[in-house]
Amino acid sequence: MSKILVIHGPNLNLLGKRELNIYGEVTIGEINRDLEALAKPKGVSLEIIQSDHEGEIVEAVGKAKGHFDAILINPAAYTHTSVAIRDAISAVAIPTVEVHLSNIYAREDFRHTSLIAPVARGQISGFGKMSYLLGLQAAIALIGK
Amino acid sequence: MSKILVIHGPNLNLLGKRELNIYGEVTIGEINRDLEALAKPKGVSLEIIQSDHEGEIVEAVGKAKGHFDAILINPAAYTHTSVAIRDAISAVAIPTVEVHLSNIYAREDFRHTSLIAPVARGQISGFGKMSYLLGLQAAIALIGK
Amino acid sequence: MSKILVIHGPNLNLLGKRELNIYGEVTIGEINRDLEALAKPKGVSLEIIQSDHEGEIVEAVGKAKGHFDAILINPAAYTHTSVAIRDAISAVAIPTVEVHLSNIYAREDFRHTSLIAPVARGQISGFGKMSYLLGLQAAIALIGK
Amino acid sequence: MSKILVIHGPNLNLLGKRELNIYGEVTIGEINRDLEALAKPKGVSLEIIQSDHEGEIVEAVGKAKGHFDAILINPAAYTHTSVAIRDAISAVAIPTVEVHLSNIYAREDFRHTSLIAPVARGQISGFGKMSYLLGLQAAIALIGK
Amino acid sequence: MSKILVIHGPNLNLLGKRELNIYGEVTIGEINRDLEALAKPKGVSLEIIQSDHEGEIVEAVGKAKGHFDAILINPAAYTHTSVAIRDAISAVAIPTVEVHLSNIYAREDFRHTSLIAPVARGQISGFGKMSYLLGLQAAIALIGK
Amino acid sequence: MSKILVIHGPNLNLLGKRELNIYGEVTIGEINRDLEALAKPKGVSLEIIQSDHEGEIVEAVGKAKGHFDAILINPAAYTHTSVAIRDAISAVAIPTVEVHLSNIYAREDFRHTSLIAPVARGQISGFGKMSYLLGLQAAIALIGK
Amino acid sequence: MSKILVIHGPNLNLLGKRELNIYGEVTIGEINRDLEALAKPKGVSLEIIQSDHEGEIVEAVGKAKGHFDAILINPAAYTHTSVAIRDAISAVAIPTVEVHLSNIYAREDFRHTSLIAPVARGQISGFGKMSYLLGLQAAIALIGK
Amino acid sequence: MSKILVIHGPNLNLLGKRELNIYGEVTIGEINRDLEALAKPKGVSLEIIQSDHEGEIVEAVGKAKGHFDAILINPAAYTHTSVAIRDAISAVAIPTVEVHLSNIYAREDFRHTSLIAPVARGQISGFGKMSYLLGLQAAIALIGK
Amino acid sequence: MSKILVIHGPNLNLLGKRELNIYGEVTIGEINRDLEALAKPKGVSLEIIQSDHEGEIVEAVGKAKGHFDAILINPAAYTHTSVAIRDAISAVAIPTVEVHLSNIYAREDFRHTSLIAPVARGQISGFGKMSYLLGLQAAIALIGK
Amino acid sequence: MSKILVIHGPNLNLLGKRELNIYGEVTIGEINRDLEALAKPKGVSLEIIQSDHEGEIVEAVGKAKGHFDAILINPAAYTHTSVAIRDAISAVAIPTVEVHLSNIYAREDFRHTSLIAPVARGQISGFGKMSYLLGLQAAIALIGK
Amino acid sequence: MSKILVIHGPNLNLLGKRELNIYGEVTIGEINRDLEALAKPKGVSLEIIQSDHEGEIVEAVGKAKGHFDAILINPAAYTHTSVAIRDAISAVAIPTVEVHLSNIYAREDFRHTSLIAPVARGQISGFGKMSYLLGLQAAIALIGK
Amino acid sequence: MSKILVIHGPNLNLLGKRELNIYGEVTIGEINRDLEALAKPKGVSLEIIQSDHEGEIVEAVGKAKGHFDAILINPAAYTHTSVAIRDAISAVAIPTVEVHLSNIYAREDFRHTSLIAPVARGQISGFGKMSYLLGLQAAIALIGK
Repeated sequence: MSKILVIHGPNLNLLGKRELNIYGEVTIGEINRDLEALAKPKGVSLEIIQSDHEGEIVEAVGKAKGHFDAILINPAAYTHTSVAIRDAISAVAIPTVEVHLSNIYAREDFRHTSLIAPVARGQISGFGKMSYLLGLQAAIALIGK
Repeated sequence: MSKILVIHGPNLNLLGKRELNIYGEVTIGEINRDLEALAKPKGVSLEIIQSDHEGEIVEAVGKAKGHFDAILINPAAYTHTSVAIRDAISAVAIPTVEVHLSNIYAREDFRHTSLIAPVARGQISGFGKMSYLLGLQAAIALIGK
Repeated sequence: MSKILVIHGPNLNLLGKRELNIYGEVTIGEINRDLEALAKPKGVSLEIIQSDHEGEIVEAVGKAKGHFDAILINPAAYTHTSVAIRDAISAVAIPTVEVHLSNIYAREDFRHTSLIAPVARGQISGFGKMSYLLGLQAAIALIGK
Repeated sequence: MSKILVIHGPNLNLLGKRELNIYGEVTIGEINRDLEALAKPKGVSLEIIQSDHEGEIVEAVGKAKGHFDAILINPAAYTHTSVAIRDAISAVAIPTVEVHLSNIYAREDFRHTSLIAPVARGQISGFGKMSYLLGLQAAIALIGK
Repeated sequence: MSKILVIHGPNLNLLGKRELNIYGEVTIGEINRDLEALAKPKGVSLEIIQSDHEGEIVEAVGKAKGHFDAILINPAAYTHTSVAIRDAISAVAIPTVEVHLSNIYAREDFRHTSLIAPVARGQISGFGKMSYLLGLQAAIALIGK
Repeated sequence: MSKILVIHGPNLNLLGKRELNIYGEVTIGEINRDLEALAKPKGVSLEIIQSDHEGEIVEAVGKAKGHFDAILINPAAYTHTSVAIRDAISAVAIPTVEVHLSNIYAREDFRHTSLIAPVARGQISGFGKMSYLLGLQAAIALIGK
Repeated sequence: MSKILVIHGPNLNLLGKRELNIYGEVTIGEINRDLEALAKPKGVSLEIIQSDHEGEIVEAVGKAKGHFDAILINPAAYTHTSVAIRDAISAVAIPTVEVHLSNIYAREDFRHTSLIAPVARGQISGFGKMSYLLGLQAAIALIGK
Repeated sequence: MSKILVIHGPNLNLLGKRELNIYGEVTIGEINRDLEALAKPKGVSLEIIQSDHEGEIVEAVGKAKGHFDAILINPAAYTHTSVAIRDAISAVAIPTVEVHLSNIYAREDFRHTSLIAPVARGQISGFGKMSYLLGLQAAIALIGK
Repeated sequence: MSKILVIHGPNLNLLGKRELNIYGEVTIGEINRDLEALAKPKGVSLEIIQSDHEGEIVEAVGKAKGHFDAILINPAAYTHTSVAIRDAISAVAIPTVEVHLSNIYAREDFRHTSLIAPVARGQISGFGKMSYLLGLQAAIALIGK
Repeated sequence: MSKILVIHGPNLNLLGKRELNIYGEVTIGEINRDLEALAKPKGVSLEIIQSDHEGEIVEAVGKAKGHFDAILINPAAYTHTSVAIRDAISAVAIPTVEVHLSNIYAREDFRHTSLIAPVARGQISGFGKMSYLLGLQAAIALIGK
Repeated sequence: MSKILVIHGPNLNLLGKRELNIYGEVTIGEINRDLEALAKPKGVSLEIIQSDHEGEIVEAVGKAKGHFDAILINPAAYTHTSVAIRDAISAVAIPTVEVHLSNIYAREDFRHTSLIAPVARGQISGFGKMSYLLGLQAAIALIGK
Repeated sequence: MSKILVIHGPNLNLLGKRELNIYGEVTIGEINRDLEALAKPKGVSLEIIQSDHEGEIVEAVGKAKGHFDAILINPAAYTHTSVAIRDAISAVAIPTVEVHLSNIYAREDFRHTSLIAPVARGQISGFGKMSYLLGLQAAIALIGK
């Protein structure tokens, strides 16, 4: 059975409670349920974490080698500031898919640059919860399921 | 029955013949077949065009109003240079999904900026042919199918 | 009788149908009628074209030498990206007036720079349909009518 | 009867005496006469000032509220350096037309940026004395005459 | 017999009629005659096109694969703005020589950057008609004649 | 008895009459009354001026030496453009507190840089009328009251 | 009774022990005592934390919703690098006051830009311990006490 | 008898009283006496003004035409911000010498750029009072004395 | 006996397992053994930590005062993003040596700038494990052993 | 008989011995022989020098006036850093052709800018030894042979 | 007797022979004679050198310590590129006056920045031969003659 | 026996005589003695040169191939300006270690960029004389001693 590590970056635990105009009413719990529902029938098991700590995400990625076949990550704010997460992804060399709920290219200038994208296989942004679901499909395809 | 306009930008007719290291062996014909295969069962009909001409793409988008429910576009080279295609998408206000075969953020600097992204609903890049298929799913979802 | 070439750039055929908040309800037909009404009593005949194709506009300008006394152009999106139209205007050396419906200096940053302005005699922006009418007056004055 | 405030910025009192290659032989007196001749038949009265002082222009704009229906301004050198005049125009919210004798986009780089343009309704540049006359027409139209 | 595709970019049909101070009195017809005269004795046949359309040039390059041994191109204005022509040259992988009549490095800043140069084998600029003739020699040498 | 010079920069006389969405309904008179009310019980006398003229503010600061123990200034538009006011503050070496009604860091880019801040002791922005009152407290504290 | 969350960013626990030339001799304990002394008589209770961890600050802000009426934060080094703290403040939408001991605009260039300021209500910098006390007053005023 | 206009820019009246480490102990009165002492024996009369007002300097330059043979100016802070003074100098076309007491190239970055220098004949900076005296010699030489 | 704090930044625990082309086959354990072997005979004891958490490194540095005579740090990814670690080093004022395994100046652009270097005594990069050993020698020399 | 000065810049004496992947196997001796072979039949004599010293190249160009009809130069590394060679070429006003073995526009960013190009008649880059031979032809043509 | 080292940078030996429009007809011999004529009566002896070699100028400055009381230098092209000359001047700490014949601020952009100016006492530019004579006066004054 | 070429760049002969605050009291002779003392016992012979001439350093590097096993270089001022030395190091492909006495990253901005670093194996800066000694150790290790 394949395994995929799903990482929710900082502040994503707050989803669905505020800034509805940007992120919609979806909650992280709902996203996780839908991801599980999509993964299970394809014989893929998920491990899902959320962290506000850059260091925890670096550690999670660093330990993923040998335990996970792919990573699905929404780095949120760390997308734009974390060389450490980038280096971790680059170091473990596990196929990684980057997703964003909102269209980061239609927001403030500093959100237009992703430090993660150059080391990810691909990026999906702007489709709300669907960004995750499409991203999971991509990750599953990348591991050859 | 819903209708989606699929636009392949410049040079995409050359796919599968060269630069296999970047774009893989997939051909535009194969992409189109897979898109049709995905669309039909969902009751969605596609109109697919390829053009090397910025002006033709502008016209195609301009005429889409009232005839199409969504646009799926790989603007290719025009991603980075065409304000005219951006203005057309913005003018017709049809939900638009931008896709790229390669991970544009892992290539030359001038490919990191998309003039189209701010007026698209979302963007998918880096998954080869799968970028189109995920993009079509997103487009279908956007029109409420 | 003097002749002036009027060029409407890309997407201007869509005027009056959408993005009313930016461009107002005026249509290209209405602009053309008002331009004709202004030109005729002054003994000036107009040839009016609209094109979404950069190349067609380049050709139209290139062929204008010897046939037109002035050019009135709204380059729209090509204002910011077309060195080719700039070179054509520069090559034929016909007095050219650049107009814009909206105030391009109050919009996105990339619209603040015009590649056309340095080779035009002058520029008028921000007055909606009136930009064209003032521009035509300027063009007529430039040809010494 | 409508009233329009006409403001000539710094150094414009020197017009017609020097730098004829850039500004031509027109004098400020001549411009003013032509503006009056255009305004009177349309039932518009003008108040015309010239000042080399940024502060005086700020004051003139600040006091215009309630006394003028529109402002016609050639901010000259202050176009590129005065946030104070911009703020004044923005504060009084009177429709304002910005004019320039020369084509500022064909001159030194630092003249390509106008701090005034984003808060004006529109801008006209490059037509010599005619820039003023077209600008006055625009101003009159803006106040619904 | 070897074949070389010669492409003249936008506005080059206007050569020899105007802007003589920059481009001299040479016409495109004269350049073509001299190119033919140089090619024939070396057993090289030429196909020569001129286009103001970016898309037509993209198409011509795209179709050149298998039919031409080298490309000689003066991209003119598109030198500085066309990612699409660059991608086409890169895609077909035919040895390409870029030429310019004028010394682009002694003109406006925006002409100092060529999007084409990085994918061409080499570049020749500044020698008027001779740029083409030297470029053709280079192209012939590249195909091993 | 200590003395503090309070300087209101350009356009602040217009406060409370317009742009209520940015500056609120407070008037300069009201601010001055509140400042006086705060100063008097602490044995501090205020001299308050408002000027639209950069030169007048420079002069006021230049003459302050020996007459004032501190300066409280809202340089308004001159915050971003006046090296002269900066030099005056630096020359007289009187402790200076810079205040702003609005949060200048949440507005246009050109308002994010203050030429005054590096020579002031500190800066307070974004609290409306309260910015002045907090600033006066800071000034009083700086002079050791 | 109102509640305000006070957050001291990284390294602020070291205050008063070193770099006295920049930060003075004040300690974090002293600041906290003075803040409490100011808050209590106004019926405001404080919760005060110090953390060197970006993630902990993000969490503290994220959990503040519903429990605190305002936030008083000195983000210290994270002022210039943390999009995550910015996003947290933006997400919880609690009125936030940003304070700095030193005048950040009189220090190194990279300290002149605050990622936090655009989402804070206002900013106070340069007054040492007094920055906190003025900031607390502002926060109390913002919650309508 | 030749006449030279000497202009001292903003804050120069404060010379010799403060910031002695940058400007030394010289006063404006002393500079003026030395300038007079140098001018008189050469049959040159001086008119000397000091102003903190950009507008006054613009006016003084504007009125100099026909009355003065050269201008000696220390624009001080306006060196870096005044397009209006630059335009005035350019308009009257009187030979102008720019001087600075301190070495502006060894100070803050924003002092490294002079808007005045490109329209002055030459510039002298860094020699304290001697900058003025050398500048006067240069001015006298320029008028052919 | 002198004490030196050795800090390995994020991802360095992964050394020797992957990206061998950049970092070689050395492991962190091997580096630590060699550092100990070098330190002991010189009467220097080491405390060695590795952390993926910016905050933990800040804390470790903050607590080092009084306990360590020097710091040897490979800040890894935080080299380029952490103002907090920089501030901590600056605050404790313990002589600090910065080391890098790879030549950071021969890698991506964003790795060319170190926020740590300006507050370190010196920097050593590019010599693999030897960077650490040379750095330790430097640190020992700095503390006068 | 005409004379052309051929200048090989720094490191070109090392040609053909190393970095064969960039410069090929050609040696400077071979280039010189081919240049001579091309020049002699056309009645042109060559003087050929190689120097690693910027100053020597400046001197050689400075002394060329009156002795040479054209200059053929490969400035190598000095292309990007030498204002002195540029000034020398500009001062002697001898027609100069700039050549490069490699395509400088396909290498590092700092090699994309030539300080020499704006004062040369034209530039040829990317054709290996042939760049020199084409350049010599161009030089001969420039002197009207 | 005081001694001053006069250094003419690269290409200045060519003065008076060409580019008369920029540098006038003055020759280096004439400048030297006038400098000597000015120096002698004041009891100052000059040593004058001209070099096209950056290294020679560095050496000359390096050896000046103890032998010269001041340096008068026209670094010409090396003004904009030589950190080595800057470092030499800084190292020997001899009062240095930088002069330029032409107004470097009215020429190409790259001539607006002097690497030498921040380590010189002052700079004089734009007065032709007189720049040297004024500079020598300044140098003599700096050594207290 | 292995051989290492040691190169001291411009102005380093002045060491120990001036700017003691930056470079300390060490002289080049002392550095050389210490380097010899370190090399000899390891069976490494040194050839040591100092030059103020960029060209001489280029030549020395160019001739090193086949005669030296490694290069130890302090390029001093040429660190920041010499593409020629960079190209020489790159051409000979001898392992090269770059050293600096001072911490170049704690000095002026223009010293933060090294043109040499990307082609060196590694860089050591900030440790005074010890930078050389550590660098020599690194060089010896690189040649496998």
